[in-house]
Amino acid sequence: MQKKFDDILSEKYNIKFNDESLLDEAFTQASYVNEHPDQDLKFYERLEFLGDAVYQLVVSDYIFIRHPEMPQGRLTRLRAAMVNRHSFSRFARECQFNEFIRLGKGEEKAGARNRDSLLCDIFESFIGAVYLDQGIETVKHFCNMVIFPKLDQGWFDEFFDHKTELQEAIQINGPVKIEYKLLDENGPDNDRQFKVAVYVDDQELGVGEGQSKKNAEQVAAKGALNRLGIKDQKLQ
Amino acid sequence: MQKKFDDILSEKYNIKFNDESLLDEAFTQASYVNEHPDQDLKFYERLEFLGDAVYQLVVSDYIFIRHPEMPQGRLTRLRAAMVNRHSFSRFARECQFNEFIRLGKGEEKAGARNRDSLLCDIFESFIGAVYLDQGIETVKHFCNMVIFPKLDQGWFDEFFDHKTELQEAIQINGPVKIEYKLLDENGPDNDRQFKVAVYVDDQELGVGEGQSKKNAEQVAAKGALNRLGIKDQKLQ
Repeated sequence: MQKKFDDILSEKYNIKFNDESLLDEAFTQASYVNEHPDQDLKFYERLEFLGDAVYQLVVSDYIFIRHPEMPQGRLTRLRAAMVNRHSFSRFARECQFNEFIRLGKGEEKAGARNRDSLLCDIFESFIGAVYLDQGIETVKHFCNMVIFPKLDQGWFDEFFDHKTELQEAIQINGPVKIEYKLLDENGPDNDRQFKVAVYVDDQELGVGEGQSKKNAEQVAAKGALNRLGIKDQKLQ
Repeated sequence: MQKKFDDILSEKYNIKFNDESLLDEAFTQASYVNEHPDQDLKFYERLEFLGDAVYQLVVSDYIFIRHPEMPQGRLTRLRAAMVNRHSFSRFARECQFNEFIRLGKGEEKAGARNRDSLLCDIFESFIGAVYLDQGIETVKHFCNMVIFPKLDQGWFDEFFDHKTELQEAIQINGPVKIEYKLLDENGPDNDRQFKVAVYVDDQELGVGEGQSKKNAEQVAAKGALNRLGIKDQKLQ
């Protein structure tokens, strides 16, 4: 692996690989291997397979400990929001992984280096390489630095169904009436804004705006969860 | 937890819990908690959530190391065959877990104790409890004793698509003709037997029998994989 990337890993994340070839493997696409048949290279896919399971456990462990009273259903939904391939490509970019992927010339020309799907894969293969080289504690350390703080920054909110959350949270002791009402709708057709309020047993608990009624309802439900103090239990 | 179960865990699997309450939680269904509101009991579902991810990683790690050349796609299919809830209930019965579940009276009467779906859950919650109390190495030790030997005994074969395996294995260097031919069909309508052969580039490589053409083809493909020495790479 290039020295610059070693420096980034070491300085930003305090990770120093024992077996550099694992890091090479994690960042090498099949197209590069095919173009260098004389070198004995491996591509990232097997490490991606392993990293997927490692990341899933590290996230599960973290939210299990952080939320000692959260029921299984909500844990499962929170995990699904965090183990989301759309987020992986954002993590990969933040860690500058895109700069160090080894691609074949055709893939490079086609712009694969900044393709979300490739960055997702590389995020997982990196996790797999760290696990093999350093063990699961170092993966936890990396996630504590890079991933978990984003819970509080609302990164995973878009994958979270706040309406279902709200419904389950307040109906835990029996049925309660929940209504979403459209308060306002304005703007031109191509930039329409909707404003929605959520009422729980006829009491307004949250208001939300969005570019669709559905989005506005989600924002309103999130507001109600915050107001009820449920956000603390869910994401903090 | 009952002393008898502690003895089984200790004698058969060399596992001794530090925190017995985790073991209690792993084996307690919500119906039992509801019937004992005076006791501060927890039911198994959160541990099941955690155990699911732990087991997935332990299996992934095991097959990744065991098959250093197996491509990602086959690793993924092998994992899916092993992380199969139908198998979990069989493991749970083998370990006598069914005898020690704590159920409410209604559930007991309804026969929940031997219900596959409950046994699956309990298998996962047990894995979660072992992980929390003892760490992942003890889960690996348990799987090495109880689960992984079953790979060689063919337990997961029924979840494995041998036809796809065969096709991928022999077409790795380009297209090859694979044909399945019905050799024989006999027996009464309610107990029909089919005999099928698989031909690879017109050479017969395997014969299989089954109660449907599809089953007979799978058995024939498995025979061809064995004959080609591919079984070693896949399951051993």
